[in-house]
Amino acid sequence: MVVRRPPQAATNTTITSAQTFNAHTKKGTRNVIESGGVGDDDDDVLTNLVEPLWPEDLKHLPYTFNRVSAEESIKMSREFYDKMNERRTIRFFSPDPVPREVIENIIKVAGTAPSGAHTEPWTFVAVCDPEVKQQIRAVVEMEEETNYAKRMGNQWVKDLKFLRTDCVKEYLTMAPWLLLVFKQTYGMLPDGRKRNHYYHEISTAIAGGILLCAIQTAGLATLTSTPLNCGPAIRGILQRPPNEKLLLLMPVGYPAPDATVPDLTRKPLEELMVTV
Amino acid sequence: MVVRRPPQAATNTTITSAQTFNAHTKKGTRNVIESGGVGDDDDDVLTNLVEPLWPEDLKHLPYTFNRVSAEESIKMSREFYDKMNERRTIRFFSPDPVPREVIENIIKVAGTAPSGAHTEPWTFVAVCDPEVKQQIRAVVEMEEETNYAKRMGNQWVKDLKFLRTDCVKEYLTMAPWLLLVFKQTYGMLPDGRKRNHYYHEISTAIAGGILLCAIQTAGLATLTSTPLNCGPAIRGILQRPPNEKLLLLMPVGYPAPDATVPDLTRKPLEELMVTV
Repeated sequence: MVVRRPPQAATNTTITSAQTFNAHTKKGTRNVIESGGVGDDDDDVLTNLVEPLWPEDLKHLPYTFNRVSAEESIKMSREFYDKMNERRTIRFFSPDPVPREVIENIIKVAGTAPSGAHTEPWTFVAVCDPEVKQQIRAVVEMEEETNYAKRMGNQWVKDLKFLRTDCVKEYLTMAPWLLLVFKQTYGMLPDGRKRNHYYHEISTAIAGGILLCAIQTAGLATLTSTPLNCGPAIRGILQRPPNEKLLLLMPVGYPAPDATVPDLTRKPLEELMVTV
Repeated sequence: MVVRRPPQAATNTTITSAQTFNAHTKKGTRNVIESGGVGDDDDDVLTNLVEPLWPEDLKHLPYTFNRVSAEESIKMSREFYDKMNERRTIRFFSPDPVPREVIENIIKVAGTAPSGAHTEPWTFVAVCDPEVKQQIRAVVEMEEETNYAKRMGNQWVKDLKFLRTDCVKEYLTMAPWLLLVFKQTYGMLPDGRKRNHYYHEISTAIAGGILLCAIQTAGLATLTSTPLNCGPAIRGILQRPPNEKLLLLMPVGYPAPDATVPDLTRKPLEELMVTV
């Protein structure tokens, strides 16, 4: 089933009869849904009722599903595990270029993620401009110095020691692409009013997990980073609007030929899974 | 590269010389890393320094990477998009059984997710017992009645109307499996002290996204739900410890032959992606 978005939804022109009401959502009653589930300081609770993004009488269609046999299902799930289990977080990248079409395809995959009320509260910024990569690296390295020295505390520094990382982030200029995953904490209507983006952080992180699968499936490598305190500066560099907040920063490319990874292991199934 | 976890890490017996210090993390200085990035009320900031989960002098090994051609990469990324783009959230399930091995494989895939300081802060509970499924359904339906009537507000009810959902959740007993994704807000040492689980919510949601890819790749269907206010009761039913909090509840199985989906579309690439 090919899913296509009608032009009117894409451009928000369905919002023709939006009216302002006093909704019964108040600051004092904000909850996990209204705030997106993240507890951000500037998560607003929106108090004006607006038209829904999707028409209330939206048609429902039969779902076409091609069912495979149990044997085939076992085989496919095992093969996908083998492929995903090869993934490691990479900190040493080759500068070799990656085709733009691959980057576009992996972002399209991330865009298939589910989201609260199908609000699709995410934006993916793909940076290949060397100067912009350098600016982003400068921001991250400056913040990381403070993070290591002051913000993070002794336990964090101790818990990260096995990674042998420091404030120098060469991969941010070496990798051919930087993918920046922004969550949209709210949506904007053409008339300037805000729209709730339910569960925006969880939804965007789920899209980030799907992005990781797409990167691995395309034969590329990445590093999943959460650039603490870098969001506002990077948003400025990329000229993103105030409703977008940086969630993940991921260099994407091929590993350097001499890339190393810590000799880590993963939890075995019996620690991961409980059957009831 | 096959990743294996050494037995001592799996059983936490590496913690042999743990000592108690006054760390400089205090309630007043808690930040996104220490709290897991979720702003939960009961996210503790841990004030005692403990031994790291992974030894500080952990070996680093060469990363074996099989590089594919640009053409192959384009082809694989396009095929993976086609597969993932077929995924839809399903609310009508067939009771047909799904092999346990498939469920184990998809949870193993989710367990390949990255996490802050490789703390792997997640537990996946797979429920196939009909009575337990019924108990979970009863909790969800009771809370959903309150959610629709009071908690969620007019805008939420309006924004969800196109889905044609209500408080009756037949899929929770119809689907052969319920997968419950718990985030571990902190870790437990054998001596009862707590260990920081950095970025536990984002990490677990990313694992949830990888789980979605695994479900789709295995030829199965699911519904990604965030059961508002049901966490404590469901944790009780499943006898999970207090450091585990429910993040996602996902019925897994085959769609019913007459399953329908709303006639939704997804953002096109030009709304999803910005290139710099």
